[in-house]
Amino acid sequence: MRVMGIDCGTEWTGYGFVETDAQCELRAVTHGAIHLLKRDSLPHRLTVVYSRLMALMAEHSPDVVAVEEVFHAANSKTALKLGQVRGVALLAAATCKLPVAEYAPLAVKSAVSGYGMADKRQVQFMVTRLLRLAAPTETLDASDALAIAICHMHHEQTGIAQRDSRR
Amino acid sequence: MRVMGIDCGTEWTGYGFVETDAQCELRAVTHGAIHLLKRDSLPHRLTVVYSRLMALMAEHSPDVVAVEEVFHAANSKTALKLGQVRGVALLAAATCKLPVAEYAPLAVKSAVSGYGMADKRQVQFMVTRLLRLAAPTETLDASDALAIAICHMHHEQTGIAQRDSRR
Repeated sequence: MRVMGIDCGTEWTGYGFVETDAQCELRAVTHGAIHLLKRDSLPHRLTVVYSRLMALMAEHSPDVVAVEEVFHAANSKTALKLGQVRGVALLAAATCKLPVAEYAPLAVKSAVSGYGMADKRQVQFMVTRLLRLAAPTETLDASDALAIAICHMHHEQTGIAQRDSRR
Repeated sequence: MRVMGIDCGTEWTGYGFVETDAQCELRAVTHGAIHLLKRDSLPHRLTVVYSRLMALMAEHSPDVVAVEEVFHAANSKTALKLGQVRGVALLAAATCKLPVAEYAPLAVKSAVSGYGMADKRQVQFMVTRLLRLAAPTETLDASDALAIAICHMHHEQTGIAQRDSRR
């Protein structure tokens, strides 16, 4: 199984593809982050996220897309901005007919570090170890995305995935 | 000029096309609302909004898309949900290479009723009069969308349109 994790953000949106190899060990296929430029109009920025995610899905053929649930944002303005990117990411998955699984941030952090309050650096450190990456990801957005994908792998193995949330 | 107004919502998204006729009077081309079913998954609902808006843009060829700015939402959860639909609506406009104009809710209400705090019923009443509709729109979402389109027409006529906001 190959999972695409997406960490939506208004400036950087991380992505990471994880699969299980022949020895049933986790392996990173590719990872990175899409940078949105503030000088571009919002509609243009959304087009960039959508087209990049669609291209990545087409190139790396994941079986499922995993994203973080968002319960709390700093304020409603931040939530609206994040929602716009998240909507486009979910649309890309639906357009590619890929199921979407959502995980609480606490579940994602716990899955990679055993600690639900782990910070982004700890998550990056553990993702690097768990996937035996030669070097840490260039951005914390990419390591967060890989962590979401790893979280889905763990939940699939334990059979408690949350697919196609109504949220 | 033909304007498509979109009133984004998590359950109902209103749309309305307004144009100026040969006598330079405003005329409604078509209007309605897209209903999203709670029983459908979020990715599927976003696909419905996106594909319906794309089809409407293709069928009615607007010159510009007008939407409401969102400053305040009841809470961050509501803002996130609204943002997801709004992101997809803006993506549809960008995909169709249409410019997007954004207007504050107060500007939209003032444009049709002369009163920035007008409620949705007042807006519907005034939209029905201004566009000489045979009957009020079936939904308040559709009248809100027509009001946004009328607001853009007024701003175009007075030369103070806000296009391609960076917000």
